[in-house]
Amino acid sequence: MENKILEMKNILQEHNIEKINEFVSHFQPFDIASMLVELEHEEQLIFISMVPIPLGAEILEYLDPELQYQLLHRIKDRFTSSFLNEMSSDTIVNLLLSIHPHHAKKLLGFLPDDYRKKIYTIMNYEPNTAGRLATVDYIAARINWTADQALHHIRKVGHDAEIVSYIYVLGSRGELVGVVSLKEIILAKSGTQLEELIQGDAISVLVNMHQQDAADILSKYDLVAIPVVTEDQRMVGILTVDDLIDVIHEEATEDFQKLGGSQPLVEPYFKNSIWNLFRKRIVWLLILFIAEAYTGTVLRHYEDTLSEQIALAFFVPLLIGTGGNTGSQTVTTLVRALAVGEVQFKDMFKVFRKEVSTGFFLGITMGAVAFIRAFFLGVDIDTGSVVAISALFIVIWASIVAAILPMILHKLKIDPAVVSGPFITTLVDGTGLIIYFSLAKVLLHL
Amino acid sequence: MENKILEMKNILQEHNIEKINEFVSHFQPFDIASMLVELEHEEQLIFISMVPIPLGAEILEYLDPELQYQLLHRIKDRFTSSFLNEMSSDTIVNLLLSIHPHHAKKLLGFLPDDYRKKIYTIMNYEPNTAGRLATVDYIAARINWTADQALHHIRKVGHDAEIVSYIYVLGSRGELVGVVSLKEIILAKSGTQLEELIQGDAISVLVNMHQQDAADILSKYDLVAIPVVTEDQRMVGILTVDDLIDVIHEEATEDFQKLGGSQPLVEPYFKNSIWNLFRKRIVWLLILFIAEAYTGTVLRHYEDTLSEQIALAFFVPLLIGTGGNTGSQTVTTLVRALAVGEVQFKDMFKVFRKEVSTGFFLGITMGAVAFIRAFFLGVDIDTGSVVAISALFIVIWASIVAAILPMILHKLKIDPAVVSGPFITTLVDGTGLIIYFSLAKVLLHL
Repeated sequence: MENKILEMKNILQEHNIEKINEFVSHFQPFDIASMLVELEHEEQLIFISMVPIPLGAEILEYLDPELQYQLLHRIKDRFTSSFLNEMSSDTIVNLLLSIHPHHAKKLLGFLPDDYRKKIYTIMNYEPNTAGRLATVDYIAARINWTADQALHHIRKVGHDAEIVSYIYVLGSRGELVGVVSLKEIILAKSGTQLEELIQGDAISVLVNMHQQDAADILSKYDLVAIPVVTEDQRMVGILTVDDLIDVIHEEATEDFQKLGGSQPLVEPYFKNSIWNLFRKRIVWLLILFIAEAYTGTVLRHYEDTLSEQIALAFFVPLLIGTGGNTGSQTVTTLVRALAVGEVQFKDMFKVFRKEVSTGFFLGITMGAVAFIRAFFLGVDIDTGSVVAISALFIVIWASIVAAILPMILHKLKIDPAVVSGPFITTLVDGTGLIIYFSLAKVLLHL
Repeated sequence: MENKILEMKNILQEHNIEKINEFVSHFQPFDIASMLVELEHEEQLIFISMVPIPLGAEILEYLDPELQYQLLHRIKDRFTSSFLNEMSSDTIVNLLLSIHPHHAKKLLGFLPDDYRKKIYTIMNYEPNTAGRLATVDYIAARINWTADQALHHIRKVGHDAEIVSYIYVLGSRGELVGVVSLKEIILAKSGTQLEELIQGDAISVLVNMHQQDAADILSKYDLVAIPVVTEDQRMVGILTVDDLIDVIHEEATEDFQKLGGSQPLVEPYFKNSIWNLFRKRIVWLLILFIAEAYTGTVLRHYEDTLSEQIALAFFVPLLIGTGGNTGSQTVTTLVRALAVGEVQFKDMFKVFRKEVSTGFFLGITMGAVAFIRAFFLGVDIDTGSVVAISALFIVIWASIVAAILPMILHKLKIDPAVVSGPFITTLVDGTGLIIYFSLAKVLLHL
């Protein structure tokens, strides 16, 4: 990689277009973009003014919006205009929304009127919706065309489309009537009407659908792109699979961070300042601290029991830790199963039975182990028995709480990922202590 | 949905092929498959013998391997043969590996010799590799062809291909020379050589690459399919984006379950017996129990300190809980950032600085809050100060441990997801207690 970048730097110094073309012909646009970011800014400008426009536009797609802007801003106006017309509309929308509105306005001036209007429409949809993520570079056909006419049309306009695998068949009002794949058009007998090639009602998503739901539909139907329509079925654009893969990654990352008990970071890790990390984390830490604070009240309540039998304190972290671990295992499994749709609210009773049964056997095992541990700590048999029975009940209790809570939150449309490991741990801690000390009081007659 | 199923049942009773065709024409194969699983088995058999073979094959793709087998096994042999020849090779491989080898052998008998050989090759690759996931239904072209010849070839064989968006250009030994998109072939001027259309070296993956890595490459280069080759560049098949989306989901689910502190479930939630859930969870529960057991030793060591100042016990769950929560936040953020490549081992020092600084400010805040809590529990100022200072140090300590551990494990090629929330919690619990009681001993002169 580093050799390649040096080679690139040398070639750029020569200002020899043929050598540059020969160099880039060995790489994919993504790889060239990865090399480009390692160059000096002046070198980047030379490079981008010397590669063929279509390739340059593809390379620009892989760069950060800031760098995209710096390059588009500093090259000659006619290049800026050509690049913008070659870039995909979703990249342009992302670029325009990431830079200063004043700069965005200047760039918008380079676009033809009707294209600018389409870009405006997309920019006005809410963040994280299907509409905002859509690209307008798709190929549309009329319902009364034949397959040959469609193919002719593709040959004419296909160059600007982000994806040509599907052709979207529109009615007279611009409403989506059906989808035909390029494969079907190519394989169709001469003279076939597009209408005959449409199989079933078109799968589409509404502009205001959440991007996560759109990604789910795309992966359910094994599609490469999905049309985005308004309430009255007018076609706005398409979502492509590569953008939705990014959405899947993003949403999984968010769930991870929520499970870890912090608010999701919007930016990649290193783009977050210390202050930002602090802000995202302190909220949950404080909430959990306040929730956990009642363990102090519980323990103070049992102060006498505790001072009579100080050995009971030895097992506090162990018992509440085990309860928390059990709850955490169940919660993560269920949160994920709910997120991917394997489990639904109507399965609640089934889940409950399964988790409680599993919890029972886990409890028996952990109780036995706790008894052995108490023995080796040199604690008397009675206290050991209290620890063992407590372990049994705490594990079952943690399983119950962890099974029910995510289901109820899911039903209440609260993201169950917020019932993170730390949250369930906190909840089980105090209640676990009550179980432990109540049993101790009764069984040890304290 | 339920109405549709009733309608379907009624139509099936009439055995009227036209009505069935009219009914299915309104749906996508995925939707028909979702309805089919709700029918009686006899009805399923009638249905699958009456729909057109290509549509039936598409519907079969969405069913469980068990149901696929039951249907293929009970319909007439000539149907079985036609369906198998229409189904995609990766579905067939998955089916054959899920049923009894004896049954698999019988089904393999329905395939043409050369196709059977290809299927055998795929079946012999290791699970979770690119090779095992590949489909052999792709379109290959020769390097010396023109675009027109390639298009003619696509029209001839395209029907059996899973994806026609890319054409794979092979050399004389069957080695992959380059990839050309169908778009480029369609847009090419008449007489263009395929060689001229190839841009850069083909992106491909080796047969034994892990499926997760293959998915990463596909999403990095925004591809819809990626060719799978042997060490000597011979083409084996392609991985398609829909299969890789499933891989992305699977791998995220595994990471979730590991973070939750249990071994990943291979099957969907409800397919796991109670015994299986028990087995997956008890291992980690026991490991964590044993790791946590030393908190008992620590507390027994400080038994005298504890009995002199019993109020110290009130804050044990709160302090170790806060330490665990802080560690858990950092670990989940970093594990995810490592998994998606945002953070690398070489960034260790940067991560360390960032996390310790964040931890410092979090610690200050939590220390202040802990002091307030101690005050309201009616504890004396000295003990309250010990609790506050302990909170500060424990939070910083938890940040340090949680920042370093995943990085080191990642470097040692141990999956950092195993440094799950529960694991870091356990680790911080005992060390946190040592910090707490050492401070108490010194500051309270106990």
